[in-house]
Amino acid sequence: MACEFKVTRCVEFAETDMAGIMHYANFFRFMETAEHGFFRSLGFSIVMENFTPPIGWPRVHAECDYFKPLRFEDEVEIQLLVSNKTAKSLSYLFRFRKLNTPPGEEVARGSLTVVCVTRQVDGRMKAVNMPAAISDKIEVAPKELLQ
Amino acid sequence: MACEFKVTRCVEFAETDMAGIMHYANFFRFMETAEHGFFRSLGFSIVMENFTPPIGWPRVHAECDYFKPLRFEDEVEIQLLVSNKTAKSLSYLFRFRKLNTPPGEEVARGSLTVVCVTRQVDGRMKAVNMPAAISDKIEVAPKELLQ
Amino acid sequence: MACEFKVTRCVEFAETDMAGIMHYANFFRFMETAEHGFFRSLGFSIVMENFTPPIGWPRVHAECDYFKPLRFEDEVEIQLLVSNKTAKSLSYLFRFRKLNTPPGEEVARGSLTVVCVTRQVDGRMKAVNMPAAISDKIEVAPKELLQ
Amino acid sequence: MACEFKVTRCVEFAETDMAGIMHYANFFRFMETAEHGFFRSLGFSIVMENFTPPIGWPRVHAECDYFKPLRFEDEVEIQLLVSNKTAKSLSYLFRFRKLNTPPGEEVARGSLTVVCVTRQVDGRMKAVNMPAAISDKIEVAPKELLQ
Repeated sequence: MACEFKVTRCVEFAETDMAGIMHYANFFRFMETAEHGFFRSLGFSIVMENFTPPIGWPRVHAECDYFKPLRFEDEVEIQLLVSNKTAKSLSYLFRFRKLNTPPGEEVARGSLTVVCVTRQVDGRMKAVNMPAAISDKIEVAPKELLQ
Repeated sequence: MACEFKVTRCVEFAETDMAGIMHYANFFRFMETAEHGFFRSLGFSIVMENFTPPIGWPRVHAECDYFKPLRFEDEVEIQLLVSNKTAKSLSYLFRFRKLNTPPGEEVARGSLTVVCVTRQVDGRMKAVNMPAAISDKIEVAPKELLQ
Repeated sequence: MACEFKVTRCVEFAETDMAGIMHYANFFRFMETAEHGFFRSLGFSIVMENFTPPIGWPRVHAECDYFKPLRFEDEVEIQLLVSNKTAKSLSYLFRFRKLNTPPGEEVARGSLTVVCVTRQVDGRMKAVNMPAAISDKIEVAPKELLQ
Repeated sequence: MACEFKVTRCVEFAETDMAGIMHYANFFRFMETAEHGFFRSLGFSIVMENFTPPIGWPRVHAECDYFKPLRFEDEVEIQLLVSNKTAKSLSYLFRFRKLNTPPGEEVARGSLTVVCVTRQVDGRMKAVNMPAAISDKIEVAPKELLQ
């Protein structure tokens, strides 16, 4: 049972904006990088075409609090923690920490809620219970890690 | 005194992902498009280098709830509403509505809180009161529009 | 028969980088915006799922020469010109012109070559003749416009 | 003297488009990732504010040939080779190779030409000789590697 994953990214030039800092929308891309790495660490790809029926994980809520800016070539660790789990949904907390000076400083905190869906005949998405193969491997992180 | 702004965008191919829908991080780019258009509608650019001292508007909080996906070539109206105002900060509510079928459907709702800052001698940002020239032109939207 | 299309874009904040100018990769997004608008002007979407078999237009070559930078809130006109046409491919020339000061200055010139493909049973793409319905509407621009 | 650099990237979900493949403009972001890594391998950041005067490296030409698509979670190696060097400019060749199946396949080839500039008093960029500290560390790759 897993409840945590960490990945490190280096802020790229194309991710900065004219204010000289990482554009705020890119924190949401970094969250997704951690989410997909979490799934790979469990032996899955987030693109689950080999499940019957194929399932997807659209986002229903996304959020970020920004404490300090990230700059070009900053090394940033994104820590994913599972903060909630229902039959059909998962919520994640993300902590962004700079690994260069000052080391370990939390620069942003985000969250995502995703729902397990399948596509109906008319093309529309419908929430379904997540497969046991996935659910059995994921648990909510201890409270003290989520504060 | 202004409290609202609307802008229309067409979802571009590069804004979609392999799920066939607009990537969720791009909703935050669309919010910013509306925010900057709002400032232009007041006679300002969001890049305020000609204020003394120059000021900027970093984000401290960003959030989005997703109800329905947006797809390639969807016409979407982004409505900005000023939801809160303090001496140093502004908060916005954003409603995303599809203009093609079904017309007017709200597909997502977002919010942003930005802080007026100036850059100190050491390069760090410091929250300051927003200039009167700006503050005098912005008011919070009526409660009934914000629900 | 059409050989030209123009679209105007305003450079957005998220499209700039820390050098204070539009990031160079975004010129390729702007080219595509013009290409897809060109197809809409002919009555088509570039996403051609209702053709039998469905066809797509992957890029085989893309290129851009940069003369002057584009900056935040610059109004830029992207002019698409059809520069070559074969049974299976189309080539476009793109001129980028600033519409604010100095008006009409060409700031970049790009080109794209795209191939009409269909997806084979094994998922791989195969070049095919473009449908007559499309081919009949597109012609190469006069030489003097392409210089 | 260095003439080569390699970096590996995993194609992220946000880098794909609705065609299910990496969006073609993102190859230009990957080239830049390799270019900036090359500079770091020489002991420099591409953002050279501590040179007197500060210098920058705007692109004057960018180009890419696409042979095969890249897909989500593909591991891709980007090989940078210095293909030309003048007093004021550098040209790079980039080979994109998939590291997953089939291993080593070249899926795209790109090139970039960048110019060393400084910013004049009026804000405009002017081409200048690159500093010897940089020039002394870079050489053109052997011909056989560039074919």
